[in-house]
Amino acid sequence: MGSLVEELAGALGAGQVSTEEELLARYAVDQAPVLDFQLPEAVVFAGSVTDVQAVVRLCAAHNVAVVARGAGTGVSGGAHASRNCVVLSLERMNRILDLNPDDETAVVEPGVVNAALNEAAAEHGLMYAPDPASFRSSTIGGNVATNAGGLRCAKYGVTRDSVLALDVVLADGSLIHTGHQTFKGVAGYDLTGLFVGSEGTLGIVVAATVRLKYLPRDVHTIAAFYPDFRQAAAGVLAVGRARVQPAIMELLDGGTLAQLDDLHGSDLSSRGRSLLLIQTDGFGAAAEADVVRSVLAAGGATVSTESTAEAEQLVELRRNSRGVEVDDEYRVGEDVAVPRSRLVDYVAALEDLAATHGVSLKVVAHAGDGNLHPTFWIDRQDSAVDADAMGRLNLALDASINAALEMGGTITGEHGIGQYKLRWLGLEQAEPVRELQRRIKELFDPAGILNPGKAI
Amino acid sequence: MGSLVEELAGALGAGQVSTEEELLARYAVDQAPVLDFQLPEAVVFAGSVTDVQAVVRLCAAHNVAVVARGAGTGVSGGAHASRNCVVLSLERMNRILDLNPDDETAVVEPGVVNAALNEAAAEHGLMYAPDPASFRSSTIGGNVATNAGGLRCAKYGVTRDSVLALDVVLADGSLIHTGHQTFKGVAGYDLTGLFVGSEGTLGIVVAATVRLKYLPRDVHTIAAFYPDFRQAAAGVLAVGRARVQPAIMELLDGGTLAQLDDLHGSDLSSRGRSLLLIQTDGFGAAAEADVVRSVLAAGGATVSTESTAEAEQLVELRRNSRGVEVDDEYRVGEDVAVPRSRLVDYVAALEDLAATHGVSLKVVAHAGDGNLHPTFWIDRQDSAVDADAMGRLNLALDASINAALEMGGTITGEHGIGQYKLRWLGLEQAEPVRELQRRIKELFDPAGILNPGKAI
Ligand SMILES: Cc1cc2nc3c(=O)[nH]c(=O)nc-3n(C[C@H](O)[C@H](O)[C@H](O)COP(=O)(O)OP(=O)(O)OC[C@H]3O[C@@H](n4cnc5c(N)ncnc54)[C@H](O)[C@@H]3O)c2cc1C
Ligand SMILES: Cc1cc2nc3c(=O)[nH]c(=O)nc-3n(C[C@H](O)[C@H](O)[C@H](O)COP(=O)(O)OP(=O)(O)OC[C@H]3O[C@@H](n4cnc5c(N)ncnc54)[C@H](O)[C@@H]3O)c2cc1C
Repeated sequence: MGSLVEELAGALGAGQVSTEEELLARYAVDQAPVLDFQLPEAVVFAGSVTDVQAVVRLCAAHNVAVVARGAGTGVSGGAHASRNCVVLSLERMNRILDLNPDDETAVVEPGVVNAALNEAAAEHGLMYAPDPASFRSSTIGGNVATNAGGLRCAKYGVTRDSVLALDVVLADGSLIHTGHQTFKGVAGYDLTGLFVGSEGTLGIVVAATVRLKYLPRDVHTIAAFYPDFRQAAAGVLAVGRARVQPAIMELLDGGTLAQLDDLHGSDLSSRGRSLLLIQTDGFGAAAEADVVRSVLAAGGATVSTESTAEAEQLVELRRNSRGVEVDDEYRVGEDVAVPRSRLVDYVAALEDLAATHGVSLKVVAHAGDGNLHPTFWIDRQDSAVDADAMGRLNLALDASINAALEMGGTITGEHGIGQYKLRWLGLEQAEPVRELQRRIKELFDPAGILNPGKAI
Repeated sequence: MGSLVEELAGALGAGQVSTEEELLARYAVDQAPVLDFQLPEAVVFAGSVTDVQAVVRLCAAHNVAVVARGAGTGVSGGAHASRNCVVLSLERMNRILDLNPDDETAVVEPGVVNAALNEAAAEHGLMYAPDPASFRSSTIGGNVATNAGGLRCAKYGVTRDSVLALDVVLADGSLIHTGHQTFKGVAGYDLTGLFVGSEGTLGIVVAATVRLKYLPRDVHTIAAFYPDFRQAAAGVLAVGRARVQPAIMELLDGGTLAQLDDLHGSDLSSRGRSLLLIQTDGFGAAAEADVVRSVLAAGGATVSTESTAEAEQLVELRRNSRGVEVDDEYRVGEDVAVPRSRLVDYVAALEDLAATHGVSLKVVAHAGDGNLHPTFWIDRQDSAVDADAMGRLNLALDASINAALEMGGTITGEHGIGQYKLRWLGLEQAEPVRELQRRIKELFDPAGILNPGKAI
């Protein structure tokens, strides 16, 4: 290994290759539960496309794996180090190379933080639509590699829908350009779409051309408190039936409200057992908000009327309601999605599962997309914490995954398979479909050096 | 071949296999120019997934190619018969298998006509957004296989953005299911996206799960006449700069207006040398239309004011402005797209090219997407028709393709490569990118029996 590290240091600039213990440990994991902790042999900070090519080539020559890393905010272990690997950080490649307000496109290096791109776009009345709750820290490269979703994806689509073209370094160190600079283009196979969501297993994204959308002229935010969680879930369907498309539809259950109260000293729990936060935007925002309010009120909600300032504050809280904590021995969380019509059933199933297994439940959901993040947990101070706690949590978790699949859902709406969710992938995808993916992986990366053991 | 036809007839029901000369000829080509006319050995009308599997298996056993066919409205020769092939028509598989208004999804067989799905969806206040001008005849299977665009794609996205899951029969006759029934899902590689736009070369689509969008509550249509084409193109940019997102932005040049007048006895030409048709929709449609009108008027347009009935009629005309004719020895047409900022430059380049080569020009454009359909033509009655006519048309055409590429554009915005545009593909895509696609093709179809010689 010494020789690889030396060669990396020789090929790249000073300060770009580190084997410093504390740094290795920090870059060994993302925000996901750690199943198999491994220290990388080195962390390399690429500053250019040529750097990335050199790293991939040297690692290939030494048969050492390359684990690409953006901000490490992933929650599936996609950026976890694996045995005999180098972590390739793209965070220093953080320049916006081009932002053309007439084309409504931007070309960015992979390490550009989502919020930074949005700030630059906002100066021109534009936005980069996909807005994971991690938007203040996660990178466009990471967003592309995970096909990240976010709050306003119900209306504006996920990352894939905003990516037009990619520059990708392949497993042999060669550089290709896929896609088109235009909004539309159908020449050949959609390689761009294949790289999106491939979690660093098919190539390293070194630049992305993305489409920007218009910053909405007007935004209305509605907070609707419900006496129980199922009624709130039904509210999502009711808004759909009114054929109004909000930009944001976030659902928070009682457990989440209690937690927010704890953290921020708010009194949300006293106002309802569940909260539905809806944002309409664009020229029709006010009219849409009127329809939404009356639909929700008819469904039993206490709806914010006049001022939307408080509601907007709640959206901000929601944007931060995940990440203040990570999974540990007292908490397991997931990222399932179900068809919208099953939202109420699924929410009911989750509540039943929590009761059955004697664990607490907390749910936030991008409800417009049917994408739920349930967390089963046990209070550390609680007498319920016993040797069996993790066992019960995992039973509830596995059952929640099965329930989602039975309703026609998926095991991951937006976080990706990474390392952590591999164990469930076979429940969702049939063997021939998995085999096809393995063969695609083999085609792109015959030696298996790009993020092995992830995604498929 | 006799034996294959017999085996096909044996495996399928009566009346599903034809070798009738007239029918073979009709199913030998789509709407594209024919470079290499071939009669298929047989035309097979599949009625079920099992039929499709049987056809693919039998053809594979006999090493005979399978050319999938929807409605045959393609304009790139994707459905042209090739040597030693069977044309597999999916048009009889035309059932809507499921339409769930709460899920806002539908599951359809491949032969369902776009308009039929939209009619069924409309009963629930929903629509299937991608609306190629061929929507009254083209099939969802064909739309998926070409990743069809359409008029309202500027706002609602192309076919790929509406496809959630696919059932696909592979080259070995096996059936796989890709994707997810939910709006979002990121488990594994995006095989669904890979099949979309693959023009029947990777597998036969036998069912599609699509996402539906909301039928807009309100629609406003604006007709803006301009004294010249370039100013009209500038109008598209001006609307963009106002950060208003119309559902439809269609641009018609003077040549097209004259043709519409000829066909329909209208007087469009007398009102301007170019027409920009804009439709805003949704709750904000009226407010958006107001902004659009003032922006266009400021840019030199004569804008329809009160009644939008006439403007709506013009959109209907536009929906039919292609297809009344096909390319022939007097006419060559294309489907380029350019970055929006280059619209005016490109329109100018087209006009210059027509002048330089002594041919006439006619352009319609999905201008919101920067997607143009220029046609170079020569009047049959004209003295300009000489032995060299086709030569000049093709010089203009090739130059128009080069001009689009030089501006960062693509050779095909929505029609696909098919057979006809293969000759230009190398100008757009570098050899390593083409090679990757060939290897993907080989992975899916090692014997090369699925629509050989197309798409890549
Ligand atoms: C508080 C919080 C909120 C979150 N909210 C959301 C949300 O709303 N929606 C959502 O979808 N996710 C969310 N996430 C998950 C996470 O932020 C996303 O998955 C994000 O896209 C990861 O970006 P990153 O830059 O941190 O990538 P990393 O975590 O560093 O990497 C993620 C994956 O991408 C690969 N990768 C990274 N960069 C590249 C590259 N340049 N080329 C190839 N592969 C690469 C890695 O190998 C890894 O497999 C949240 C996470 C947190 C902690
Ligand atoms: C008047 C007119 C207007 C048009 N307007 C537009 C427009 O606005 N936007 C646009 O994008 N296109 C447009 N087109 C082109 C054409 O209609 C589209 O490409 C359409 O998607 C083709 O559908 P189809 O059912 O006719 O498919 P076909 O022409 O039969 O086939 C098209 C391709 O798809 C393959 N294919 C068909 N069905 C399947 C299947 N089930 N599985 C696998 N492969 C399959 C074929 O092999 C072929 O390669 C227009 C064409 C005409 C004639």
